[in-house]
Amino acid sequence: MIDLKKCIRSVPDFPKKGIVFRDITTLLAQPQAYQQTLEEMGKYAHRRKADKIVAIESRGFIFGGALAENLGIPFIPARKPGKLPAPTVKQEYQLEYGSDAIEIHVDAIKPGDHILIVDDLIATGGTLEAVCKLVEKMGAHVAGVAAVIDLAFIPWRDKLKTYDVFTLISYNSEAE
Amino acid sequence: MIDLKKCIRSVPDFPKKGIVFRDITTLLAQPQAYQQTLEEMGKYAHRRKADKIVAIESRGFIFGGALAENLGIPFIPARKPGKLPAPTVKQEYQLEYGSDAIEIHVDAIKPGDHILIVDDLIATGGTLEAVCKLVEKMGAHVAGVAAVIDLAFIPWRDKLKTYDVFTLISYNSEAE
Repeated sequence: MIDLKKCIRSVPDFPKKGIVFRDITTLLAQPQAYQQTLEEMGKYAHRRKADKIVAIESRGFIFGGALAENLGIPFIPARKPGKLPAPTVKQEYQLEYGSDAIEIHVDAIKPGDHILIVDDLIATGGTLEAVCKLVEKMGAHVAGVAAVIDLAFIPWRDKLKTYDVFTLISYNSEAE
Repeated sequence: MIDLKKCIRSVPDFPKKGIVFRDITTLLAQPQAYQQTLEEMGKYAHRRKADKIVAIESRGFIFGGALAENLGIPFIPARKPGKLPAPTVKQEYQLEYGSDAIEIHVDAIKPGDHILIVDDLIATGGTLEAVCKLVEKMGAHVAGVAAVIDLAFIPWRDKLKTYDVFTLISYNSEAE
C-alpha cells in the first residue's frame, strides 16, 4: 500500500498568503497512487450501495469519472451556474463573502436514487453541503460523500453532520 | 457496440442563439456507452504509444482521468491561468474576440514524453492547438489528440494539421 499523503504536494501561500494548498496533481502523476485512491473509493461506494456518482466541478471530475467507470454506474456532473446545457435544478450557498450556486441536470437524478457525491478535497464543506441538499431536493438519497483529502482543522463536519463522509487523507493543521 | 452518437443530446441555442450544443452528460449517464468510449480511446492511446495523458479542464478531466487510470499512466491537468498551485508553463491563444491562456505544471512533463491530449469536443481546435504547442515547448512529443466529438463543419483541422487526431463522433452540420 502506498502512503497517499506522501503523494500530495503542499504549496504554501496558494491561492493566498497563509493558506497551504494541498495539491493532488502529484498523486495523479503516480498511477499506482491514483489507482489505489480509486480502489478505496470504490470499496466505499459498494459499502454505501451507491448507484450513481455525482462529481463536483472540476477536480472532482477526475476522481468521479474514473470511479463511475470502474463501478459501471452513471456519472453526473454538478457544475457552476450556466455551464450545463439542459434544464437544471439549482442550489445556492453562502461563501465567506457573498454567495455561489451549483446545478445538476433535472433529468439526471430520480427519486429513490442512491447518490455518492465525489470531490477532491473537503475544506469548509459548503459546496458539498449544497450538493447534498440539491440531491435531496430531487428526491434522491445521499448514500455518502467521498473525497481524497479533508482539512480536519476546518469545522466542515458541522455542515455535513447528517451525512456519511469518507476521506483518505486528513490534515490536522495548515502546518502539517 | 452502442451507437455513441445516439447517446449525445443536442441542445439548440446553447450557449447562444444558433449554436447547437452537443451534450456529453447523457453519454456519461449510460455506463456501457461511457465504458465503450474509454475502451476506444484506450486502444488509440496504445496505438500511439502514449505514456502520459494531458486532459483539458474541465470536461476533458472526465475522460482523461478514467483513461489514465485504465492505462496505468500519469494524468496531467491542463488548466486556465491561476488554477494550478505550483510553477507552470503557459501558452496564450487567440479567441474570436480577445485571447485566453492555458497552463501545465512545469514538472509534469519531461523532454521525450509521449503525450496523449484528451478533451471532450473539438470545435475550433484553438485550445487543443495551444496545449499541443505547450507540450512541445516543454520538449515532449504529441503522440496524438483524442476527443469524443468533433464538429467537422468548423475548420479545426487547419489548426491541428501536424497532429494525429482521433474522435468517436463527428457532426457535419449544426442541423445534424
